[in-house]
Amino acid sequence: MTRVGILLMNLGGPERIKDVGPFLYNLFSDPEIIRIPIPFFQKPLAWLISTLRSSRSQQAYQSIGGGSPLRRITEQQARELQSELRQRGVNATSYVAMRYWHPFTESAVSDIKADGINQVVVLPLYPQFSISTSGSSFRELRRLREADPQFRKLPIRCIRSWFNNEGYIASMAKLIEDEILLCNDPENAHIFFTAHGVPKSYVEEAGDPYKDEIEDCSILIIDQLEKALGYINPYTLSYQSRVGPEEWLQPYTEDVLAELGESGTKELVVVPISFVSEHIETLQEIDIEYKEIAKEHGIDNFRRVRALDTYPMFIKGLADLVTSCLEGPEISLDEASKLPDRVKLYPQEKWQWGWNNSAEVWNGRVAMFVFIICLLELVIGNGPLHYLGLL
Amino acid sequence: MTRVGILLMNLGGPERIKDVGPFLYNLFSDPEIIRIPIPFFQKPLAWLISTLRSSRSQQAYQSIGGGSPLRRITEQQARELQSELRQRGVNATSYVAMRYWHPFTESAVSDIKADGINQVVVLPLYPQFSISTSGSSFRELRRLREADPQFRKLPIRCIRSWFNNEGYIASMAKLIEDEILLCNDPENAHIFFTAHGVPKSYVEEAGDPYKDEIEDCSILIIDQLEKALGYINPYTLSYQSRVGPEEWLQPYTEDVLAELGESGTKELVVVPISFVSEHIETLQEIDIEYKEIAKEHGIDNFRRVRALDTYPMFIKGLADLVTSCLEGPEISLDEASKLPDRVKLYPQEKWQWGWNNSAEVWNGRVAMFVFIICLLELVIGNGPLHYLGLL
Repeated sequence: MTRVGILLMNLGGPERIKDVGPFLYNLFSDPEIIRIPIPFFQKPLAWLISTLRSSRSQQAYQSIGGGSPLRRITEQQARELQSELRQRGVNATSYVAMRYWHPFTESAVSDIKADGINQVVVLPLYPQFSISTSGSSFRELRRLREADPQFRKLPIRCIRSWFNNEGYIASMAKLIEDEILLCNDPENAHIFFTAHGVPKSYVEEAGDPYKDEIEDCSILIIDQLEKALGYINPYTLSYQSRVGPEEWLQPYTEDVLAELGESGTKELVVVPISFVSEHIETLQEIDIEYKEIAKEHGIDNFRRVRALDTYPMFIKGLADLVTSCLEGPEISLDEASKLPDRVKLYPQEKWQWGWNNSAEVWNGRVAMFVFIICLLELVIGNGPLHYLGLL
Repeated sequence: MTRVGILLMNLGGPERIKDVGPFLYNLFSDPEIIRIPIPFFQKPLAWLISTLRSSRSQQAYQSIGGGSPLRRITEQQARELQSELRQRGVNATSYVAMRYWHPFTESAVSDIKADGINQVVVLPLYPQFSISTSGSSFRELRRLREADPQFRKLPIRCIRSWFNNEGYIASMAKLIEDEILLCNDPENAHIFFTAHGVPKSYVEEAGDPYKDEIEDCSILIIDQLEKALGYINPYTLSYQSRVGPEEWLQPYTEDVLAELGESGTKELVVVPISFVSEHIETLQEIDIEYKEIAKEHGIDNFRRVRALDTYPMFIKGLADLVTSCLEGPEISLDEASKLPDRVKLYPQEKWQWGWNNSAEVWNGRVAMFVFIICLLELVIGNGPLHYLGLL
């Protein structure tokens, strides 16, 4: 009997306050998260950003209990999905592969090999595809596969995105409905979809399908809701969690909250549409920061729809995805990790160096130092490059 | 029904080559591993040792496939133990808590709290107690418990050591017997127990019961073997894995191998007595390094007894430990983590600083730099302290 390994991919999150800095460093070291034209500066920049953001980020994690619950919830999802599939007669075992924190993809791959799995199904826990989320995880997995002859022999089928999965849409609609019915004036409660943002250039220049999939997804949910409720609530879609000076997908969540409040919205049902598990963006950003902004602008009833976590209908939807993937046409890892032609990413492998995080940080510091020296020289018109006659 | 959480504690190991340095740093930062009189220098020293040893250690991990299998094997043990206990009617869930690498104890504690466990049983995966292994893990758990009001409310029972557990002794004897019977001259095959060493001062000054428990354990195994085979093989006990200049428990494994070879021993059945899972000390140190030494000294048949891993009789032994622990007299975490009166450990909590590993490494470097400057000043008789009139 085929032993199927389900590889659940997610972002990962620091579980201890002291892991926040290294986690951010891993995150910003990924050229799929921050795209800069000179690969040499990726790690110094990652060091700089993670250092600058670390203290604020630590406070955020402190406010939700001292760490991210993402590993725990993802492992619960993995267990529930495994049980559901076994009940359906699929000899499945689930594995968790995080992109930026433990358990890393390497651990999952070593478990899959040790367990004698003979068919892998890769299921990113991002309903909508983005270069920076599922894309980055698929590419990471491909790198590991290319480097490992034993792993290369294992057949792999991928699920690229699944924003239109029935169980997912139905679960989202049901949880939103529950919150709407708790409002004082259900028919006029405003449904407020908030998705994790990405830089606008990802979508407009690089051809990331993320925005389209988020929009299609919200319409599917609204349609399903209308069927259940018999009326259409007003709704808005916005993008949260912007980092850095670049323009991200608009409208921004904080702006829309202010506008809605000022135009008289009193009851808001907030739907974290791109997240299937509770984590820092739901528990801290939405529940604390955005809620405060909403209150300031007169939105009295701010109801956040809980993340799906191990909601049974959602787990059934995931199981449907796996069984369809096993029966349907094969999507290979190469296809799944393929980026639109327009995307230029600088291969990390070629310029990775250092033996561990701290060595990398050292390298980063040296590079940053040289960078600043050069910048200073350009500004003040004198320095080592002038001395050498190079400027 | 009581929901029992079984907390399996072990050392942890790096799963990727780039994690070797940070893992060693965590290991040597523990005052229970390296005891120095001035706590301030613990982290600089940890940095120094981990940096010096990192390259050799990376090579060792590379030679066993690029990482430690300890997390994977420990999670397998956890699953098997959970199944065995559930078959016996105990509503048990297993959790893995590693001391120096992921998944850290914090993760296990957060899972235990989330799962609504109402009785915890702590089972260190070290059959024999040592200050530096089980002791360190118990103390780490106690630190977390003291800092967490919710966790503090949970009843905890501890298993301190279990070198005389029936299932463990029987499994060890059975696996040794299998190897003996594969020798050309079974009755004269030499049984070679090799335990992980500890500094001699731990035992002689600090009162660590480790050596006594290792010796008692080897006698129990030999007795059991004699019953099965009907004859007594010659046997020796030695200690491996020494680090640093200090004297460790003697005799050292490499010395005994040389002596045995020179006195004509041809067939050796090597028993890793303090390890219940395959890891770097069995797969690399014994299987590669010590095997080479043995061959050099004329020991032709070097047979290493496999580690117990998920050997069913061993898992049953662990399950017996848990059920006895639940029924028997309670050993609290305070009792389990108590050290002999003679041990002076400098509480890490008081002087911990820095926001993450790399910040700590920086701190370490600065401290090391100051330390070297002061040392130089003492040697050459001039420097900043003389300048300030302090010397």
